[in-house]
Amino acid sequence: MTAADDRLAAQFAFLNEADRLKSVLRATTLCDGSRRENSGEHSWHLALYALVLADQAGPDVRIDRVIRMLLIHDLVEIDVGDVPIHSANGTAHASAETQAAEARAADRIFGLLPGDLRDDLRALWEEFEAAETPDAVFAKSLDRVQPVMANLQSGGGTWITYDVTLPQLDARVGAKIARGAPRLWDWARQKVAPFFAA
Amino acid sequence: MTAADDRLAAQFAFLNEADRLKSVLRATTLCDGSRRENSGEHSWHLALYALVLADQAGPDVRIDRVIRMLLIHDLVEIDVGDVPIHSANGTAHASAETQAAEARAADRIFGLLPGDLRDDLRALWEEFEAAETPDAVFAKSLDRVQPVMANLQSGGGTWITYDVTLPQLDARVGAKIARGAPRLWDWARQKVAPFFAA
Repeated sequence: MTAADDRLAAQFAFLNEADRLKSVLRATTLCDGSRRENSGEHSWHLALYALVLADQAGPDVRIDRVIRMLLIHDLVEIDVGDVPIHSANGTAHASAETQAAEARAADRIFGLLPGDLRDDLRALWEEFEAAETPDAVFAKSLDRVQPVMANLQSGGGTWITYDVTLPQLDARVGAKIARGAPRLWDWARQKVAPFFAA
Repeated sequence: MTAADDRLAAQFAFLNEADRLKSVLRATTLCDGSRRENSGEHSWHLALYALVLADQAGPDVRIDRVIRMLLIHDLVEIDVGDVPIHSANGTAHASAETQAAEARAADRIFGLLPGDLRDDLRALWEEFEAAETPDAVFAKSLDRVQPVMANLQSGGGTWITYDVTLPQLDARVGAKIARGAPRLWDWARQKVAPFFAA
């Protein structure tokens, strides 16, 4: 075994472990309602959102960094599972307990990588979680708008499951979309409002 | 409706249509063998491969372009389905018939986008398909190595399904991995050889 072989073995230990994200189910369904979405395909869809909706980002957003961030943003769910935005009346997602469990998961999962890659990807995930930089704020906006579009297509989805009101959607979801992509939320809210008025 | 609204409507027509890639099944299974992989989650995993295996690319490869390419490379399968590498004794994947159907699918699917994005993403897909630029050659290497790693994890996978020999794997898969990432195939082939010797 050479050092290069050891490095490849560590890279593939991580990539093989990442495969398990395809078995983590989210509350949201596919747009056709046929089944629940998994966090692997969700991460792909979000990266495609970033590619296609780049014109909704501010001038200081670097889309390729946003894409990288979205590719890794949910890996901690391999250990922790997905915590739906609207579950526990909207309180579970950002709880201290969830955050501590996700930090432990990040230690384990990014820790499979060679040191340089571990540090780079861990820092990118921390940046996403902190939601302070322009790249992270825009990435979070996309992460919030994609389930809105899926619910619109599937006829309500998690809004029905969790008995969500329009003020709750504004507070839990709309505010975060608007923070990074204000025009996007203006547009999406027009599409969403009739569902809640019905 | 403003022009900006029309543009967003076209962007989301494409993004909602892209959701269907999550329902296109590949021959390869997840690493744990529990079910067949879909082309949406496969595209995510490949983009993550590019991020983590960037050090296997030549100096003229731009990894962020490779990632963009991998995010869109399979969208035509929404219309055409996945054509497994080893099906029809290895002849179906690159047949003229498959290629013509994929070109029609690209017209339809990328055609949902606003003109500028349609042209950009269509050109990126054509570049991937042509496999001539350094970025496309490396992207193709990753697209070939990921099912190899899944088959190794799952105990043979499509090598068993399609009764594949090591010389066939070398010709259909190994040569393409080696073209863009020679060290990667050297390493993977050492892992693969014992399976075929058994």
